[in-house]
Amino acid sequence: MLKTAICDLFGIKHPIVQGGMTHISTTELVSAVSNAGALGIIACGYYLADWVREQIRLTRQKTNTSFGINIPLISHHIKEVIEVILQEKVPIVVTGAGNPEAYIPEFKKAGIKIVPVVATVSAARRMERAGVDAIVAEGTESGGHIGETTTITLVPQVVEAVKVPVITAGGFAGGRGLAAALALGVQGIQMGTRFACSTECIAHPSYKQKILEANDCGTAITGSTTGLPLRGLKNNLTEQFLAMERSGASKENLNQFGHGKMFKGLIEGDVEGGALPAGQIAGMIKDIKPVREIIAEAEKVIAGLKNFKTGGC
Amino acid sequence: MLKTAICDLFGIKHPIVQGGMTHISTTELVSAVSNAGALGIIACGYYLADWVREQIRLTRQKTNTSFGINIPLISHHIKEVIEVILQEKVPIVVTGAGNPEAYIPEFKKAGIKIVPVVATVSAARRMERAGVDAIVAEGTESGGHIGETTTITLVPQVVEAVKVPVITAGGFAGGRGLAAALALGVQGIQMGTRFACSTECIAHPSYKQKILEANDCGTAITGSTTGLPLRGLKNNLTEQFLAMERSGASKENLNQFGHGKMFKGLIEGDVEGGALPAGQIAGMIKDIKPVREIIAEAEKVIAGLKNFKTGGC
Repeated sequence: MLKTAICDLFGIKHPIVQGGMTHISTTELVSAVSNAGALGIIACGYYLADWVREQIRLTRQKTNTSFGINIPLISHHIKEVIEVILQEKVPIVVTGAGNPEAYIPEFKKAGIKIVPVVATVSAARRMERAGVDAIVAEGTESGGHIGETTTITLVPQVVEAVKVPVITAGGFAGGRGLAAALALGVQGIQMGTRFACSTECIAHPSYKQKILEANDCGTAITGSTTGLPLRGLKNNLTEQFLAMERSGASKENLNQFGHGKMFKGLIEGDVEGGALPAGQIAGMIKDIKPVREIIAEAEKVIAGLKNFKTGGC
Repeated sequence: MLKTAICDLFGIKHPIVQGGMTHISTTELVSAVSNAGALGIIACGYYLADWVREQIRLTRQKTNTSFGINIPLISHHIKEVIEVILQEKVPIVVTGAGNPEAYIPEFKKAGIKIVPVVATVSAARRMERAGVDAIVAEGTESGGHIGETTTITLVPQVVEAVKVPVITAGGFAGGRGLAAALALGVQGIQMGTRFACSTECIAHPSYKQKILEANDCGTAITGSTTGLPLRGLKNNLTEQFLAMERSGASKENLNQFGHGKMFKGLIEGDVEGGALPAGQIAGMIKDIKPVREIIAEAEKVIAGLKNFKTGGC
């Protein structure tokens, strides 16, 4: 079994992290991923602190191994959520949508590992200086909120720029990508859309089905004009949203229009009127299967790479 | 030395192809690449047939090994250029910016290998059915005219969709990327921006310098509204062009504004008023060096991968 620096750092068997996906990275998926030897991540989204506490406790009931929690720093409840995370001593915190520097001392004091998601080399450098434990370098092919640089160009530049372990996200659905990522010099990959299409994920079956039907051109980026671009499956909603953007709709109108649409798509299964965050790799995903099989398949590919020097090429 | 299917197909030593870059992929660069054991490619751009014939003959004077020629199918001189290629029996033709199906029988009859550049899985499938010899799957991180899907998501999907050898372009500047690409299942990589920054390339020194100064966020996409998006280094010209697009300029006005700007940037060295096509990997390129060193560096990385099963993971 190929071990990398993040296996020790996070206390996991496989160099695989599950992406924190709002509404659907809940205790069901998280505990399945962690029990399979990878790193499950609870997504806080904009949920209240009490919901977050419940998710953490439920996860602890279902798994004895390591897991993490993803907090978008733009959440209105960020202070209360962080308080809960500190109280519950979640071992690993992944931060997104903002700069976590202000919170780093508290997390470190509590022995919690901090792993920010970044989309540029300069952000990676700044985060390393601020004392984070590892970095997720996320390419524009990711689902959800994204930057502009692609995984295959961003990753080797981040790996050269920092000394902390780098995990990459954006464009991964299995072992072939994991092997490529290791060649680029990272210590692990994060997969989101692939885990959304697991048996255990609570996402609505219609959303999962829509991922299975997507091809390589199946996603679109909305919200570029609002400063918070989001990649998701093309549907009536993305067409409407893009038409509004082309006709010069204000950020306020766009945000109002988008409000609540992710819950509608992911949980209620409204695949035309809801938002369906998904990565460009959706076209590679052709089945819904248990988390354990997803991880075993990836592991099988890299099992042949015992002599593969990660970061060495 | 790691050999792949394109080494035999193209008669080359290393699984590396030089991208056909208008104005700068001339006999100087092409012969240097082919003499170093990779595949040099003359770029026809919109040049006249006589210029193309001269480039082919000059290249034959400088190298005894294999080389290819890139033809953008939207060239006004396409018929005359193809006539010259048939007469001169260039061994390999790479096609871009259009559908080469109409020309395939003639090329095949002349024993010329045809390699189209594609940006989607459906185009790859169509090209295979039309009888091409190999395919270049080009991600959106490439310099010049591009599609929307990123290399790391496009490539494994193309590899699964077709049986002919696949070469990938977009995001490559050396051995680390080559190893990753082989893990994704391709038979070789194409590099453009990296070879533009070779000693032998006739591009203006100021353009090369601008590539060296670029970081991971150094490129922009212009022309999305014209249907022919182009990635290049950010400068005054891209700012002006994007402002025109945002204010709803017509395709005709934009094309007129863009006319001649690539020559101005690449050959005359006007790095603010000219267009500077370059890939997102520009941020990785930190030196100008001889072609032979670029290829040797990449070869050195994959030399350790003798047991690496390409396409197997």
